[in-house]
Amino acid sequence: MTNIFKRSSKAGLPPGSLIHVGEVREGRVRFTIFDYDKSHFSEKEVENVEECFRYTDNKTVTWINIDGIHQVDVIEKIGLNFGLTSLVLEDILNTNQRPKLEDFENYIYVVMKMISFDEKVNELTTEQVSFILAPNLVISFQERIGDTFDPVRGRLRAPKGRIRKMDADYLAYALIDSIVDNYFIILEKIGEKIDFIEEELVTDPTPDTLTTIHELKREMISLKRSIWPLREILNSLRMMESSLIMDSTHVYLKDVHDHIIQIIDTIETYKEMLSGMLDIYLSSLSNKMNEVMKVLTLVATIFIPLTFIAGVYGMNFQHMPELGWKWSYPVVWLIMISVGMSMVLYFKKMKWI
Amino acid sequence: MTNIFKRSSKAGLPPGSLIHVGEVREGRVRFTIFDYDKSHFSEKEVENVEECFRYTDNKTVTWINIDGIHQVDVIEKIGLNFGLTSLVLEDILNTNQRPKLEDFENYIYVVMKMISFDEKVNELTTEQVSFILAPNLVISFQERIGDTFDPVRGRLRAPKGRIRKMDADYLAYALIDSIVDNYFIILEKIGEKIDFIEEELVTDPTPDTLTTIHELKREMISLKRSIWPLREILNSLRMMESSLIMDSTHVYLKDVHDHIIQIIDTIETYKEMLSGMLDIYLSSLSNKMNEVMKVLTLVATIFIPLTFIAGVYGMNFQHMPELGWKWSYPVVWLIMISVGMSMVLYFKKMKWI
Amino acid sequence: MTNIFKRSSKAGLPPGSLIHVGEVREGRVRFTIFDYDKSHFSEKEVENVEECFRYTDNKTVTWINIDGIHQVDVIEKIGLNFGLTSLVLEDILNTNQRPKLEDFENYIYVVMKMISFDEKVNELTTEQVSFILAPNLVISFQERIGDTFDPVRGRLRAPKGRIRKMDADYLAYALIDSIVDNYFIILEKIGEKIDFIEEELVTDPTPDTLTTIHELKREMISLKRSIWPLREILNSLRMMESSLIMDSTHVYLKDVHDHIIQIIDTIETYKEMLSGMLDIYLSSLSNKMNEVMKVLTLVATIFIPLTFIAGVYGMNFQHMPELGWKWSYPVVWLIMISVGMSMVLYFKKMKWI
Amino acid sequence: MTNIFKRSSKAGLPPGSLIHVGEVREGRVRFTIFDYDKSHFSEKEVENVEECFRYTDNKTVTWINIDGIHQVDVIEKIGLNFGLTSLVLEDILNTNQRPKLEDFENYIYVVMKMISFDEKVNELTTEQVSFILAPNLVISFQERIGDTFDPVRGRLRAPKGRIRKMDADYLAYALIDSIVDNYFIILEKIGEKIDFIEEELVTDPTPDTLTTIHELKREMISLKRSIWPLREILNSLRMMESSLIMDSTHVYLKDVHDHIIQIIDTIETYKEMLSGMLDIYLSSLSNKMNEVMKVLTLVATIFIPLTFIAGVYGMNFQHMPELGWKWSYPVVWLIMISVGMSMVLYFKKMKWI
Amino acid sequence: MTNIFKRSSKAGLPPGSLIHVGEVREGRVRFTIFDYDKSHFSEKEVENVEECFRYTDNKTVTWINIDGIHQVDVIEKIGLNFGLTSLVLEDILNTNQRPKLEDFENYIYVVMKMISFDEKVNELTTEQVSFILAPNLVISFQERIGDTFDPVRGRLRAPKGRIRKMDADYLAYALIDSIVDNYFIILEKIGEKIDFIEEELVTDPTPDTLTTIHELKREMISLKRSIWPLREILNSLRMMESSLIMDSTHVYLKDVHDHIIQIIDTIETYKEMLSGMLDIYLSSLSNKMNEVMKVLTLVATIFIPLTFIAGVYGMNFQHMPELGWKWSYPVVWLIMISVGMSMVLYFKKMKWI
Repeated sequence: MTNIFKRSSKAGLPPGSLIHVGEVREGRVRFTIFDYDKSHFSEKEVENVEECFRYTDNKTVTWINIDGIHQVDVIEKIGLNFGLTSLVLEDILNTNQRPKLEDFENYIYVVMKMISFDEKVNELTTEQVSFILAPNLVISFQERIGDTFDPVRGRLRAPKGRIRKMDADYLAYALIDSIVDNYFIILEKIGEKIDFIEEELVTDPTPDTLTTIHELKREMISLKRSIWPLREILNSLRMMESSLIMDSTHVYLKDVHDHIIQIIDTIETYKEMLSGMLDIYLSSLSNKMNEVMKVLTLVATIFIPLTFIAGVYGMNFQHMPELGWKWSYPVVWLIMISVGMSMVLYFKKMKWI
Repeated sequence: MTNIFKRSSKAGLPPGSLIHVGEVREGRVRFTIFDYDKSHFSEKEVENVEECFRYTDNKTVTWINIDGIHQVDVIEKIGLNFGLTSLVLEDILNTNQRPKLEDFENYIYVVMKMISFDEKVNELTTEQVSFILAPNLVISFQERIGDTFDPVRGRLRAPKGRIRKMDADYLAYALIDSIVDNYFIILEKIGEKIDFIEEELVTDPTPDTLTTIHELKREMISLKRSIWPLREILNSLRMMESSLIMDSTHVYLKDVHDHIIQIIDTIETYKEMLSGMLDIYLSSLSNKMNEVMKVLTLVATIFIPLTFIAGVYGMNFQHMPELGWKWSYPVVWLIMISVGMSMVLYFKKMKWI
Repeated sequence: MTNIFKRSSKAGLPPGSLIHVGEVREGRVRFTIFDYDKSHFSEKEVENVEECFRYTDNKTVTWINIDGIHQVDVIEKIGLNFGLTSLVLEDILNTNQRPKLEDFENYIYVVMKMISFDEKVNELTTEQVSFILAPNLVISFQERIGDTFDPVRGRLRAPKGRIRKMDADYLAYALIDSIVDNYFIILEKIGEKIDFIEEELVTDPTPDTLTTIHELKREMISLKRSIWPLREILNSLRMMESSLIMDSTHVYLKDVHDHIIQIIDTIETYKEMLSGMLDIYLSSLSNKMNEVMKVLTLVATIFIPLTFIAGVYGMNFQHMPELGWKWSYPVVWLIMISVGMSMVLYFKKMKWI
Repeated sequence: MTNIFKRSSKAGLPPGSLIHVGEVREGRVRFTIFDYDKSHFSEKEVENVEECFRYTDNKTVTWINIDGIHQVDVIEKIGLNFGLTSLVLEDILNTNQRPKLEDFENYIYVVMKMISFDEKVNELTTEQVSFILAPNLVISFQERIGDTFDPVRGRLRAPKGRIRKMDADYLAYALIDSIVDNYFIILEKIGEKIDFIEEELVTDPTPDTLTTIHELKREMISLKRSIWPLREILNSLRMMESSLIMDSTHVYLKDVHDHIIQIIDTIETYKEMLSGMLDIYLSSLSNKMNEVMKVLTLVATIFIPLTFIAGVYGMNFQHMPELGWKWSYPVVWLIMISVGMSMVLYFKKMKWI
Repeated sequence: MTNIFKRSSKAGLPPGSLIHVGEVREGRVRFTIFDYDKSHFSEKEVENVEECFRYTDNKTVTWINIDGIHQVDVIEKIGLNFGLTSLVLEDILNTNQRPKLEDFENYIYVVMKMISFDEKVNELTTEQVSFILAPNLVISFQERIGDTFDPVRGRLRAPKGRIRKMDADYLAYALIDSIVDNYFIILEKIGEKIDFIEEELVTDPTPDTLTTIHELKREMISLKRSIWPLREILNSLRMMESSLIMDSTHVYLKDVHDHIIQIIDTIETYKEMLSGMLDIYLSSLSNKMNEVMKVLTLVATIFIPLTFIAGVYGMNFQHMPELGWKWSYPVVWLIMISVGMSMVLYFKKMKWI
């Protein structure tokens, strides 16, 4: 699947036209709101977008997590309330975004891909996550309900965690970090698959092995496409001179940046390894074929001349003096055996058998 | 088709020599003029180039769209009236331009490729579009009448659209954006084709599949060639310190720039996917061939020695003692069966069948 | 042909040693002198190098075109008279130069490759052209008499041409431009060849097709080698802060620069296309071979077992009960037909035929 | 083995969570402490981490080498005592780090890979080494007890060695240098293997040769991955404006930097050589196969028609006039011989034999 | 041969440890001393290193050429006398250096590779040459006695040569230039080989052709490795702000720099050409094989069914009515001929013959 949702519905519309481009979903959009500072903590789940607006210009840090972006009017209301430009809203709604970072004066907008392994269909699924980082506010938009942010939720609920003492930028970092941590899990799974196929290559390669190698290569292409731009994004975040990002957060952003570089590194290594495995598969296949062909060649090459000799003395001519001689039959056998033997010896000498 | 029109007619001429290089067309050139500001809007279609000159140094924003560049004198008159250098006119007339941007002091010149999918011949067609952005004026030169700009026309006709409140640079952006939006449609069509072929590869690959993969690769090369330079062009437009481009337009240009990067990204991914598919096709072909060959090998290798044995006892020697023995015939059958069986077992052991 | 003339004759000599490295030629060197300004124009052809020296420190623009660089003493005299360093003279004489630009304080030295298509041997020939641009003076050194500069000569002869009103730098630009224009003609010819071979690939590919594709690839390598450095050279010329280059010429140099980029672009595209065509050729070849092999496989696989059966009943044992049975013969036919049929059906089922 | 230890256990934890990611080990962690200046030297091995803390803020240079990082509490205590941030401790514990350098205000943190050749399993093993360079203090963390640092220990023990007169930064350089020196030994071993295989390729290539080539390619990929980042790290160390690094050490760091570049260069060359060897192997294999096939082709092509002729005169029709003719038999022999001969001649003419 | 001498003997030694790493040689080290200025010239060959020390802090330019670096104590004495750091001495002794340039305050150190073609073993040999450029002094270290510097010696002996009037930096340039000139000779030789093989490819390709192509590719890899770093080195020399290099020498250094770029260019072109030739070889081989196989296929496919027919009528059943019919024999011939003919026609139609 080329994984590009119909963007064509948007062609020709003015910029900022709000149209949902992505998998069609049903059901209500769910809002989860965490509000906290050092001394205070509240968590609630609401179904009404207006509930979120109470947290505008709050003194405490607020994280609004929105599960579902298929209701355009909801996204529009949020944009209106929190002062987001329509171009950003358009990007949130369009799940074909390339990961990117945009720095507006009073908020920062980040798009990333959350990647998970769908056990049912045995393939990777990609989901777009958008973040808005404003003063004391983080809004995250997910395509569907997921558990990637659960560890962050857990840390928020713990009364003595560092995260409760920090600003919104640290929360944003923690969310991004939890997505990046997930990449490692995906890579580990793929690493296991590669190890498994590698063993299979040695013991019993089948055409399925080939298919799996190609599928893994495809997954590497799509992973790289989703993760590569993050390198630049996290670099920009680190270097950004924005009042939204505290100095103390820089060291954490550098840490995520290092993780991203390591992930990209691993993807490149996996790609090279898969290419090598493909070569091994193909040359082992051709080796095997050669073995088979060699046997045909030798058997045929030895017996075809012998069969010819037998054929000659199977002819029914009335005047074939050899037919009447007493020792003809054993002599012919001798000839045939020596022809066969000398061919075998020749093949041995040529190192063909 | 290498798609390069005879430029040789121009070799050796002084710079600025106006010669039309492109598909030969007939018929009159058509001018469509939109003139508007916040409060006013007029639209007309004229056939006389002089009609356009009324809009020189206008206070309202004017968009002159010219369908057809095959009449050199018409282009020359426009250049003369609006003060374009002959080098620019030369470029407008030469449909082999690489997309580029040129910043003159009082106007900006942009060349792009408009790509559309010609359903009749089932292939991509490329058309060159030139833009002149001057104060309060946009002139667009198309090779033929097309509908790519229709959405922009629609938005201009709507009395309350944002476009009516903006300057000429926003109009230029809207036109460029509509061309870029079209690229997405083309990519979606190609994406569908790739999905289709991918399925075909698994179910029933034919030599036609190969041809289609190669054609798609070719289209990717030509798409990339047309779109790659836009990256730099839009970057320059964004960074340009020109009085012709308002600050408020920068955010829109960044948006188009992001689209271009996403398109190039997709093209690269498609190219990698097509290469992978080619590999799969070739190795599945060779797998299939190997299967066929293995059957020949086995059948031939088993029956050639047996036929030899039969041949031996088909010889007509008078002195062949075995021929007279009572149990010779069943014994020979036993020998032949056991030879055949042991070969089958050997092949099984070698995992050849 | 690797196209590198024996440079070894020069190894170990001090820098500035004047030795002609190139195709050995005979005949006198020919000098063509154009001298002009707005109001005045003269053209003459001389055979004596001293005649050229009259134009030193002239007020009018002088173009000295020298056809033939095989007479070292002539080049030396020119260098002495016009004050060129011996390193430059050495480079002019050595036809293995990579295109380059050197800026001396009072003159600019440019080396380029003039490429033409030799109809007789059906291959590209490369000739080195050197330019000296000094105040009011352009000296051009060609290896042999050619017609590439004829259009410039024509424009010089026209009394009202722009070129007559411009300085020596414009003349140098015009000469460089005429060489670059020639590249387009070469590319068009190659483009036609590619189109022709592409059609041949579909209709009737032969081993000659392969050879032609490889030759075109070779030509692309050598073209790229000659043209690639021009990109940098023309960029330097444009950016150069030299009193020798007027501001008004910059726009023309940018124009040539754009042409060079377009040419390099086309070369890259052609290279990619040729690689694709090579792949198509090889896989169509292997497809064809597979078809042939499949027929052998099927025929052999069907008839080898049948021949064995016939062989069995051709044996001459005295005690073969089947031979005496009345219906043996038709039964054997039945068996053979059913064996053959079931193999055909098996092959059909496996989609081998 | 893809060589990535389960990082997934860490996903979702807050940054700075101390978890050991690496091969599971047992046994106590061992501390070796060297304490020296020009006039003084002491060396001891302790098993109690608290013993190390005596060297905090020492006037003499102290090197604490820690063998084993699997006891999280020990690493934590060290971090606490010497004031290392939890992010650094996390990185020390996680053996999947990409080599990197981090400059904190009062200490520098460097991670590298120590590579050794495990004779037992005949493959490369990689171990992570972390360094902390603080004023008068170097702490090195190894995964297990090893002998790579032995030469440095020897030099420290020698009373007149330069190392005793230098600061902690020189000690850190010496340790890094000893790891880099080890890379040369590894490369030499691989170079010997390559030479060996190269000879094998010429004399007697087997499928094992192919496997070894692929294994060496894999090792090259993993070596490059471990060593490539060092280039940047040593460049940063050289350029760093830190009070921790004396000016006199820069020349030594440049020396290591040059070594790294030479090592990377060698790795690249080996990779190219291995690719070339792979090509040679495959084409020699296909050459050999072709030889075998040609023999089959010739034998079969010559004898199949002859066998047919013999078969014809083995038919049992009552009315076959040739059968009764006196010279039929020798004439048929003549025909068969001349058919065979003319085919041999044809093959000779075609240069097939 | 991977061409890396055992560096492992050095692992773990402190920096500046003087150990000779290279081919083991015997015999005394030879010193050739040239001492000159405009008016004075002396040349002598000594065997005692102390003789060289008379030229320390000389007013005249001195060139000490040292043939042989296998005597560590000699190199050490030179280093001591002329004030070279032990790191430089270490590099001079280690013949595995990558070409590099180091600028110390009072001298410049350059390492290069001198490449020559060894006619005896028909392969390239590489020798390391080190230069020390100090005020009025050039010291050159060669691995063995060679003739590459002979032209420079000749020019020094000529009383009126420019070299006698110039400073030590010009001498250093002349020596470097003579090494670079040698590269051209090597490239010419390789170019001739490539031309020769190219012709062989067309007329009579053999497996030896393949081996030669691969060897040339290998030589290209090793040449590139030796020459590539020179690009940067000569650039640094040109740009260097050092009192050791006169302004007047810059133009000569630029000249060598241009030569290096041209050489690298040629190496790249040769590499591309060799890759192309490899492709041609392999596809011509497979073409040839296909031709052979096709003949087998056709002969076998035609005669196998005919042999079957003959086999059927060779069966010995008592009840085969056809055997008794009068016209059976000619009818069977007719059938066999028409079967054979129709197959030939089918093959012709399919364009297989």
